[in-house]
Amino acid sequence: MITLYDLVAADPVVAFSPYCWRVKFALKHKGLEFAAVPCCFTDKEVFAFSNHKQLPVVKDGDKTICDSWRIVSYLEDQYPNTPSVFGSRACRDQALFLKFWCETKLQPAMLPLILIDIVRRLHAKDKRYFRETREARFGKPLEAVCTQPVAELGAFRAVLEPVRAVVREQPYLAGTAPMFADYMVMAHFLCARMMSPIELIEPFDPVFAWRERMLEALDGYGRRAPSAVC
Amino acid sequence: MITLYDLVAADPVVAFSPYCWRVKFALKHKGLEFAAVPCCFTDKEVFAFSNHKQLPVVKDGDKTICDSWRIVSYLEDQYPNTPSVFGSRACRDQALFLKFWCETKLQPAMLPLILIDIVRRLHAKDKRYFRETREARFGKPLEAVCTQPVAELGAFRAVLEPVRAVVREQPYLAGTAPMFADYMVMAHFLCARMMSPIELIEPFDPVFAWRERMLEALDGYGRRAPSAVC
Repeated sequence: MITLYDLVAADPVVAFSPYCWRVKFALKHKGLEFAAVPCCFTDKEVFAFSNHKQLPVVKDGDKTICDSWRIVSYLEDQYPNTPSVFGSRACRDQALFLKFWCETKLQPAMLPLILIDIVRRLHAKDKRYFRETREARFGKPLEAVCTQPVAELGAFRAVLEPVRAVVREQPYLAGTAPMFADYMVMAHFLCARMMSPIELIEPFDPVFAWRERMLEALDGYGRRAPSAVC
Repeated sequence: MITLYDLVAADPVVAFSPYCWRVKFALKHKGLEFAAVPCCFTDKEVFAFSNHKQLPVVKDGDKTICDSWRIVSYLEDQYPNTPSVFGSRACRDQALFLKFWCETKLQPAMLPLILIDIVRRLHAKDKRYFRETREARFGKPLEAVCTQPVAELGAFRAVLEPVRAVVREQPYLAGTAPMFADYMVMAHFLCARMMSPIELIEPFDPVFAWRERMLEALDGYGRRAPSAVC
């Protein structure tokens, strides 16, 4: 049995971490059953056995695996008879670029836009932890991170340009069906959708239609997640 | 026999187009012999038979193929017994993201830094064409495109962040050996190296070591191209 330690907001059904979503999408794609253990940021003792400070953490029998990329790679290797989320080992190596694009370009452009909404929805015991760690990262108070939301939203949409260009040509980042390339990007959009009412994309944007398709993927797995969008 | 219509500068051995380099790398990777026909920007009549206004254009027997992505896809399909540059059809679909990242993020960040050097090295008959088309694109005189080279260089290096993160983890963007992911990015660096003495990357940057490896790839194919770097 697979157990996923999954980051949640004040409401424990609001499991919003994009990195946990990577793992959940991969598990669903592979048809692997799992139990989720909701954890707040400050519930470090719940997954202290992992010697890892960040979620996701996965326990599979007596094995403990940390870090979303390592977890998904582990699932690929450990369950070779389930549908691959990468397509092949060569595709996995090549997907590393998109992983790091998500982490160095997509997430930094999106986070300022939803930061205050995230704090609002966190469990009371997490608010100080989140504020202190993020303010250290940004080097300023959270309220000072996004003072020009219109410009920041424009910059965020510009970051999406390569995604936009791909989904103009084919329905998914991975081609004709969604795979881990799509799940990685969608994980950030799902995080935003769970935590903030902001409309990140305009309806005429090809990324909007792709996001709709991704909400329907895996039998509407993303669509069923609680949404903060009005 | 395959013929590549290849964009050149005043010196016809300076075949600098990054999109033509995509095709040359793919042909070399596949071990396919080809003849290159050097063309200036304004030599449109030389490849007018293609009904296409931009290079690369490839003639393979009685077939004419235009656009670097289509040409490389054609080579993959037409010569299935040569080494694949993508790895598989699934990898090809997933490589579209990197293609568009190169075109919408890498190239726009690099071009301002080498624009004036490019004009200098073009054939006299091409200078006006290049200036007019690029000034229309930038909406200003070429001399006004890059007025803060230090800031622009910093912005360019920041664009490379996902490349940097990948090559910290594995030797090539494609994993353990170079494939089309690497060739697409390297094509832009080779273009810069042929046309401008500017040092785009610092020696301690992991991208620098990757670029060195790429100069050696395919028996030093890139290294042998004429260089403008002192």
